[in-house]
Amino acid sequence: MLIHSASQLLTLAGGPQRGRALGTLGVIEKGAVLIRDEKIVQVGPTAELKASYPDEPSLDATGCVVMPGFVDPHTHLIWGGDRANEFEMKMAGARYLDILASGGGIISTVRATRTASIESLIAQTRPRLIRMFAHGTTTAEAKTGYGLQTATELRLLKALLALDDESPLDIAITFLGAHAIAPEFKDDPQGYTDLVCETMLPMLKEWWGTHAPKLTLPFVDVFCESQAFDLKQSRQILTKAGSLGFPLKIHADEFDNLGGASLAVELGAASADHLVKTSDADMAALGKSDTVAVALPCTPFGLAEKDYTPAHKLIEADAILALATDCNPGTSWNESMQFSIALACRYMGLTPAQAIAASTINSAHAIRRSDTIGSLEAGKQADLLILSVPDYRHLGYRYGTNLVKQVIKHGRVYSVDVGYYRSA
Amino acid sequence: MLIHSASQLLTLAGGPQRGRALGTLGVIEKGAVLIRDEKIVQVGPTAELKASYPDEPSLDATGCVVMPGFVDPHTHLIWGGDRANEFEMKMAGARYLDILASGGGIISTVRATRTASIESLIAQTRPRLIRMFAHGTTTAEAKTGYGLQTATELRLLKALLALDDESPLDIAITFLGAHAIAPEFKDDPQGYTDLVCETMLPMLKEWWGTHAPKLTLPFVDVFCESQAFDLKQSRQILTKAGSLGFPLKIHADEFDNLGGASLAVELGAASADHLVKTSDADMAALGKSDTVAVALPCTPFGLAEKDYTPAHKLIEADAILALATDCNPGTSWNESMQFSIALACRYMGLTPAQAIAASTINSAHAIRRSDTIGSLEAGKQADLLILSVPDYRHLGYRYGTNLVKQVIKHGRVYSVDVGYYRSA
Repeated sequence: MLIHSASQLLTLAGGPQRGRALGTLGVIEKGAVLIRDEKIVQVGPTAELKASYPDEPSLDATGCVVMPGFVDPHTHLIWGGDRANEFEMKMAGARYLDILASGGGIISTVRATRTASIESLIAQTRPRLIRMFAHGTTTAEAKTGYGLQTATELRLLKALLALDDESPLDIAITFLGAHAIAPEFKDDPQGYTDLVCETMLPMLKEWWGTHAPKLTLPFVDVFCESQAFDLKQSRQILTKAGSLGFPLKIHADEFDNLGGASLAVELGAASADHLVKTSDADMAALGKSDTVAVALPCTPFGLAEKDYTPAHKLIEADAILALATDCNPGTSWNESMQFSIALACRYMGLTPAQAIAASTINSAHAIRRSDTIGSLEAGKQADLLILSVPDYRHLGYRYGTNLVKQVIKHGRVYSVDVGYYRSA
Repeated sequence: MLIHSASQLLTLAGGPQRGRALGTLGVIEKGAVLIRDEKIVQVGPTAELKASYPDEPSLDATGCVVMPGFVDPHTHLIWGGDRANEFEMKMAGARYLDILASGGGIISTVRATRTASIESLIAQTRPRLIRMFAHGTTTAEAKTGYGLQTATELRLLKALLALDDESPLDIAITFLGAHAIAPEFKDDPQGYTDLVCETMLPMLKEWWGTHAPKLTLPFVDVFCESQAFDLKQSRQILTKAGSLGFPLKIHADEFDNLGGASLAVELGAASADHLVKTSDADMAALGKSDTVAVALPCTPFGLAEKDYTPAHKLIEADAILALATDCNPGTSWNESMQFSIALACRYMGLTPAQAIAASTINSAHAIRRSDTIGSLEAGKQADLLILSVPDYRHLGYRYGTNLVKQVIKHGRVYSVDVGYYRSA
């Protein structure tokens, strides 16, 4: 299939974009892309590709931007229930850590998740996944972490594997048993840390070998923060996970600077995420590493906080910057990477081009898939978007609605046409 | 038709909500609404209505919120071109008035609008209107104002009348010839003010009688602001418009306090809009009047500015507060009232209930239609929404995507189901 005549085709070719290289879109005007057998075969000017493949079935993208599918590298996609009832409380001024301390917040979602069957968890998560896909996310990372007990965490993994199977969207799974201190261990955080290390991680290794033997191991992540896991406990968990062969991620510096980002670099983690209160030393460490700095602008927006990830400092430090939604029931129930881009432009000072690179090739690298997705290059997976706008700068400029017209995933075309009604 | 079993049916009954009364939703759990001949016949508990109308065709809203359609009382819906190219400039720090002063901003849209045919203007505006409707706006105000010359302003009016005719959404038209000083008069703002008063308004009166004799007269609006129309010129225009029988609106206090809100009250305007820099005296005047205070939170968001309309001060002053999108190509290209609600909660401190009332019954009053729309009450127009969520507090809590499942307009059902894909 030849998708042709795009007003702008964004290739994002050349691999992850470090530091000031961020924002290199590789725009081809009147661009075309040839897809066969779920892969991209060739990318170039329409005139050239039409001449080379005159009999190819074609899809006209006149007046549209064609670009790689969004890769969302940080979501807490699977949970039970909702926290609409806490929303008014937060808007009245309560802080996330206050709600956490009062036994609400994440623990209320843990309760709802533990009591939900796998069928219910899948049914509750499916609409979120579909919503993501319709907004152009063709691959998403998804974390467990609302179980905080072995059986529920494994149920979440099983549900995520089932959702990955049924959905056109690809899911990169992360085990986040260390999302918070389990309520049973609220006076013994070290006890829960030991449980994660000594019971959960070895069991996960064995379980994965049985249930998903053909897939690479999931990421192991930890929430390194005040009132969650301190730096020493985070090190203990990630070191253990690394020794078992798991690739690593970390939640660092959302509310306090504990040194999590430097720990991620030291241990060769794929990414360090949040990075709002990150120190200059931590940023310098990120800049000298292959650990991707993942900013989650929806989280401060969701909480109506003022501080966002200091993107320009990270860029100056030569880090590889990526964006994600952080989709979760507490601070950021938003499935759309387009809205992360709109925020990143306004509150992190990114240009649309920078935000797009951070949402495609760089976010693919944050889940270590930049060799197969995140750009439009020969040999890569045919995961791409046709936007209903003629200029990539409409991303960021416009907000609140969905600019994706069609999603192509593994070479198959899905029309989403969000925003258009039909009479019943 | 009986729409039944809504987890929550929000009536918003009882008319516009002044001051602290804001947020009175009139929730009926397991609610139902009976619709016949485009009107609401009865609202009440499902058990009761099902017993009274056992043979009525029915629509099951189990697990969904049913509520009045959103009324968006302030949009600049119709324009030519876009300003994606200015977006990066703004994000790099340029202010709206700086861009205006440099000949960019609104004037670039005026150029693109003047050169567009009526067919082109309709074609460019239609997708925005459809997008609004799919996001639950069943009635929208729409202003002219990118013509700034008689012929183009009348072309915009004609296009809006055509769009109102073809679209299921109702449009309340506003004449905003006084949106900015026309470029031909840049050194003679008084000359342009006189042109509006002496030529445009009388011609508008005559034109309307010929082209839309069955419709009530459009609103006349003025942009009362530094570098636009000063208070004296605003008074001159609105007084003239009032003497010709036009209902009035005003843009006031977006960037500077010129006294526009008090002028609106003095002249009995339907609304005063923006109100970011409004003085206490102006707020007190609004609170003693029937002039609705319309907040436009997408505008500071779009510009990444910090100051929003001081909603709680307006509430304490006993004003009638409403929300709108301000959809326009410069500062706020967003068609979704849901996103205005998400911002109003986070940046104006409204609860979801308050923001919903401000987006339905109060915004209907801002276009003087609260007698026919904005609430679910017997005798009103059957304009309502079925949301894909069970609790009204998901509005505001969630953002970035569309929570509307079905729109009922004049009793007719439109499925929008945004966020759900289908294979092509």
